[in-house]
Amino acid sequence: MNLPSCLSQLCRALPRRIGSTTQLILRSLSRSLVLSSQRRIPEFSSFVARTNTCGELRSSHLGQEVTLCGWIQYRRQNIFLVLRDFHGLVQVLIPQDESAASVKKILCDAPVESVVQVSGTVISRPPGQENPKMPTGEIEIKVKTAKLLNSCRKLPFEIKDFVKKTETLRLQYRYLDLRSFQMQYNLRLRSQMVMKMREYLCNLHGFVDIETPTLFKKTPGGAKEFLVPSREPGKFYSLPQSPQQFKQLLMVGGLDRYFQVARCYRDEGSRPDRQPEFTQIDIEMSFVDQTGIQRLIEGLLHCSWPSDKDPVVVPFPSMTFAEALATYGTDKPDTRFGMKIIDISDLFRNTEIGFLQDALNKPEGTIKAICVPEGTKYFKRREIDSIRKIAADHFNQEVLPIFLKVGRNWNSPVAKLIIEEQRLELTRLMEIQEEDMVLLTAGEHKKACSLLGKLRLECADLLEMRGVVLRDTSLFSFLWVVDFPLFLPKEENPSELESTHHPFTAPHPNDIHLLYTEPKKVRSQHYDLVLNGHEIGGGSIRIHDAELQRYILETLLKEDVKLLSHLLQALEYGAPPHGGIALGLDRLMCLITGAPSIRDVIAFPKSFRGHDLMSNAPDSVPPEELKPYHIQVSWPTDAEAEKSS
Amino acid sequence: MNLPSCLSQLCRALPRRIGSTTQLILRSLSRSLVLSSQRRIPEFSSFVARTNTCGELRSSHLGQEVTLCGWIQYRRQNIFLVLRDFHGLVQVLIPQDESAASVKKILCDAPVESVVQVSGTVISRPPGQENPKMPTGEIEIKVKTAKLLNSCRKLPFEIKDFVKKTETLRLQYRYLDLRSFQMQYNLRLRSQMVMKMREYLCNLHGFVDIETPTLFKKTPGGAKEFLVPSREPGKFYSLPQSPQQFKQLLMVGGLDRYFQVARCYRDEGSRPDRQPEFTQIDIEMSFVDQTGIQRLIEGLLHCSWPSDKDPVVVPFPSMTFAEALATYGTDKPDTRFGMKIIDISDLFRNTEIGFLQDALNKPEGTIKAICVPEGTKYFKRREIDSIRKIAADHFNQEVLPIFLKVGRNWNSPVAKLIIEEQRLELTRLMEIQEEDMVLLTAGEHKKACSLLGKLRLECADLLEMRGVVLRDTSLFSFLWVVDFPLFLPKEENPSELESTHHPFTAPHPNDIHLLYTEPKKVRSQHYDLVLNGHEIGGGSIRIHDAELQRYILETLLKEDVKLLSHLLQALEYGAPPHGGIALGLDRLMCLITGAPSIRDVIAFPKSFRGHDLMSNAPDSVPPEELKPYHIQVSWPTDAEAEKSS
Repeated sequence: MNLPSCLSQLCRALPRRIGSTTQLILRSLSRSLVLSSQRRIPEFSSFVARTNTCGELRSSHLGQEVTLCGWIQYRRQNIFLVLRDFHGLVQVLIPQDESAASVKKILCDAPVESVVQVSGTVISRPPGQENPKMPTGEIEIKVKTAKLLNSCRKLPFEIKDFVKKTETLRLQYRYLDLRSFQMQYNLRLRSQMVMKMREYLCNLHGFVDIETPTLFKKTPGGAKEFLVPSREPGKFYSLPQSPQQFKQLLMVGGLDRYFQVARCYRDEGSRPDRQPEFTQIDIEMSFVDQTGIQRLIEGLLHCSWPSDKDPVVVPFPSMTFAEALATYGTDKPDTRFGMKIIDISDLFRNTEIGFLQDALNKPEGTIKAICVPEGTKYFKRREIDSIRKIAADHFNQEVLPIFLKVGRNWNSPVAKLIIEEQRLELTRLMEIQEEDMVLLTAGEHKKACSLLGKLRLECADLLEMRGVVLRDTSLFSFLWVVDFPLFLPKEENPSELESTHHPFTAPHPNDIHLLYTEPKKVRSQHYDLVLNGHEIGGGSIRIHDAELQRYILETLLKEDVKLLSHLLQALEYGAPPHGGIALGLDRLMCLITGAPSIRDVIAFPKSFRGHDLMSNAPDSVPPEELKPYHIQVSWPTDAEAEKSS
Repeated sequence: MNLPSCLSQLCRALPRRIGSTTQLILRSLSRSLVLSSQRRIPEFSSFVARTNTCGELRSSHLGQEVTLCGWIQYRRQNIFLVLRDFHGLVQVLIPQDESAASVKKILCDAPVESVVQVSGTVISRPPGQENPKMPTGEIEIKVKTAKLLNSCRKLPFEIKDFVKKTETLRLQYRYLDLRSFQMQYNLRLRSQMVMKMREYLCNLHGFVDIETPTLFKKTPGGAKEFLVPSREPGKFYSLPQSPQQFKQLLMVGGLDRYFQVARCYRDEGSRPDRQPEFTQIDIEMSFVDQTGIQRLIEGLLHCSWPSDKDPVVVPFPSMTFAEALATYGTDKPDTRFGMKIIDISDLFRNTEIGFLQDALNKPEGTIKAICVPEGTKYFKRREIDSIRKIAADHFNQEVLPIFLKVGRNWNSPVAKLIIEEQRLELTRLMEIQEEDMVLLTAGEHKKACSLLGKLRLECADLLEMRGVVLRDTSLFSFLWVVDFPLFLPKEENPSELESTHHPFTAPHPNDIHLLYTEPKKVRSQHYDLVLNGHEIGGGSIRIHDAELQRYILETLLKEDVKLLSHLLQALEYGAPPHGGIALGLDRLMCLITGAPSIRDVIAFPKSFRGHDLMSNAPDSVPPEELKPYHIQVSWPTDAEAEKSS
């Protein structure tokens, strides 16, 4: 029961005649409660030249004298005007009598999207003219005075959500695009969620918000870090990809619980849904284990989740990396729907189908399948061709898919070679129903899983394009993925190792002995948080032992430890056990708002080529301004320029 | 009256016998209140391997089984151990009995600053052994189990506040320096204050926290902006000095109330108390005037002010720039003490002292003085020489100071030339007392004021070095300085104008007509916030009229408007009237904590040469890593290198 309702019940239940002291206290208590409950709705009109926002006016304001400021949304026959501010729309009655001619002139002459201030009285709309679709639809404003605050010239596009604009136009006139309902909603929701996260971390759990530098030095292997020339010849700062080193050093410094809404930088050139600068909720704790971080983050998301959505259910399910790969063919499974990968190798141990036999005879050879519900009903030649193309484009011949159309008679060239017994067992194992389609592949475990994982998502998209509801858009399906391998073979040289995530990740306690014998088998204490098939966060328990850190960097990863000597040294001076996580705020907001791109949850994003289309950044700089930084441009030759374009 | 105390009074005042419903409601109300009041103390031990923090244990915890994690602060005769965490110190009893030999070994062998986990019982200290100076001084921990979490090698310095370290050593081992009480206090206070500011802005007043890009383009005249090479040949981003353009564009975008704890960048080379990256509380509002912003900021500081200091008194006093200059000789007066500048020109209109007459005959010629209380008592030859030197170093001959030692006989070569009548009037005007000293100067108004303003602060320092308490260190004296001139003559070419602050500052409404006739006389709608003689913030009402903005940029300032075409265009599309402010968070925290340098309120500051002494940034980068950015280093010739070193 909340406090104000508690109090009102208390008042009703109290004996009629109570002492005057009690009455006084009760009145004071009541005032406090009203104040504290009022405080939950911010005062949007404090300190400014309005009494109310356009969007807040209701019948309860009838008769009040109000002053509003806003943009002219539209005008109807010089009689009505709809005024807009960030809070909503309100109808303004343009006065028609002679004495108010100057007010009428102002309101009728101002172009759409001009900014005006009006003062007047809140009145009821005449009976029958209420607009139930408009939150302020029961009232209108009878204007007494009006002031044109700024006029608007002809717009490059209309500020209406149903008017489709190209993204280039939207980014070029971002300040106009920001006026749309959707952008206002996205940015305000982002601000509110981050605020609730801060309250959870700072006020409930004693985290310290600490700002770490962004002018730092290049990290080993940090090939994607922007450089910042300094005034010392040949010396550069680097814009870090994350505050990883700093947050660990803060734990060594005894700060105990750190968080930061951290700006990070990554120079990946042109990538469609990436930004050169992005934001992460960055967290680190001392004396914590994997479970501790997971419970913290579940609480964080539960606490900050938008109230207009279904509450987040905690704890989140967890899955090992091996299981995610085997079942969903990816380390970030979308668990909103089934179509899981099933291993059917055993079924075909004695098959006579040649290429299945071949596959099984190879090391780690397997046969896998997914069952696409109602696939035979919805998938025609075109869909199947598109699936086949993806398989061919992304994977090699070994793992080409086989389509088994399940009907009265299984329709597939291969189907004839499947004996009745196998067919029955397959149907049972995979819960195949009539009109389903089975996608089958044979090959090395990881490759076969990856292919089917990709085709699973492709099939889901194709089914949804056909109108099948597979993934509930109001559903938010969180998942922890754990027990990643600590190392991977380097792509360019598979005999060498590289960190799966980063070299500060602690090995799984049960696998530490394997570090010195079979490092490829060591699992890590890394965890990823996945939402609806997107990785929205990742973190780990870190190495706090200098010896172990040095062994991993020097012996296993062959890194130049000189660049990290400060971190290694810090671990020797009483570093506590610690771990942390970082959540990608842009991606998270994008998923929550259902926005088509992360550019829709960022106020001033860069285009996919990394340009600011509004101001035209990056831009040329005259040579004399490069001089203090001791750099000069190496202009590419015509041949080079041609090659790169 | 707060809610819980209200409720307890209410309970006491209620009639003994009340209905069971009332009782139930009352109990529920009470629970809610307890919950909401508990929530104010964060749970510092959630999610981690301890039950409590070292610093929180009191007699109320007696008998409880606790697990603590912390650093070994010191050990006494292998009997006691003092364990430290961020929250405080607690005494741990090392078990002496045979059966606990392994625990004893762990606790006795671990070097100081090693990290341990101990479990045991909270017990009373034996009578007479309590330590009233220690918050946990009534109890100690009877240990059952102990675990060495990490050992510490010999430290480069002791983690004790009374151990003086050089700043270089502190910065090099920043992760150790952070363990000091003072650094923990500074960083935690900073986090708490910023959190309270956010609550005030977001929750109370509906501000939206919006992140703006830091990879932007060079602003006109932004000579101090760091450059970031992009992958396009010859194109550079720039790290902005403030989000000025973005916050104005957000207002054009209808965001209404924006704030951001914004990272800003300024490349000023080596400056003792500046940082290449710094943080400002950045605010912008639509439909606001100067007073609105001032009241907002007063509320912000009042709301977020540390509870261990005297509350901030609002509203803050306000002073025009002209008055600040005339009275304190500066635009950031320290109003904690008097020693104001007095214009005594009228007194000497008919003087026979030649150089005073000369000064008065020149344009804007004046005679000014300050009275240094007890100056003749405290200022000896050495002090007077130092004052004279400052005057000579910073100002030219015209404004050399004259020392009038006030004693029984005024002791000054000039004093003889001052007639009795003048002396009496001077004494009255300046409230001169015996043993005071008068510093007098003659010259052009602004120069004379500036000199005396500087000498006023110098005298205050000298007096305080002599033990005179002039500026109460617990006093926080806020002041608004307003009505700055909109333009100043350019230093290098006084016939041209430059903006006193920035070109988006709106002119004072009463002076707009002067823009077209005498622009030098136009006052601006800029305001500075000054605290104890330091500028901690500044802002203005902005120009929202495209025409006016273009006139000022093009005609008056002769700027290349192409670089700002997006902003000029934005003003044409229905820009609301707007204004804002930015507070320098580092400086503010420095003043509040009384820290000697802003480096003491920043977790990982740069040295005054802009270096990170811990990691050695900025650092060299191999030429192949410069290649993707199409830049190369222009190594200076030996002669150039010599000149710059």
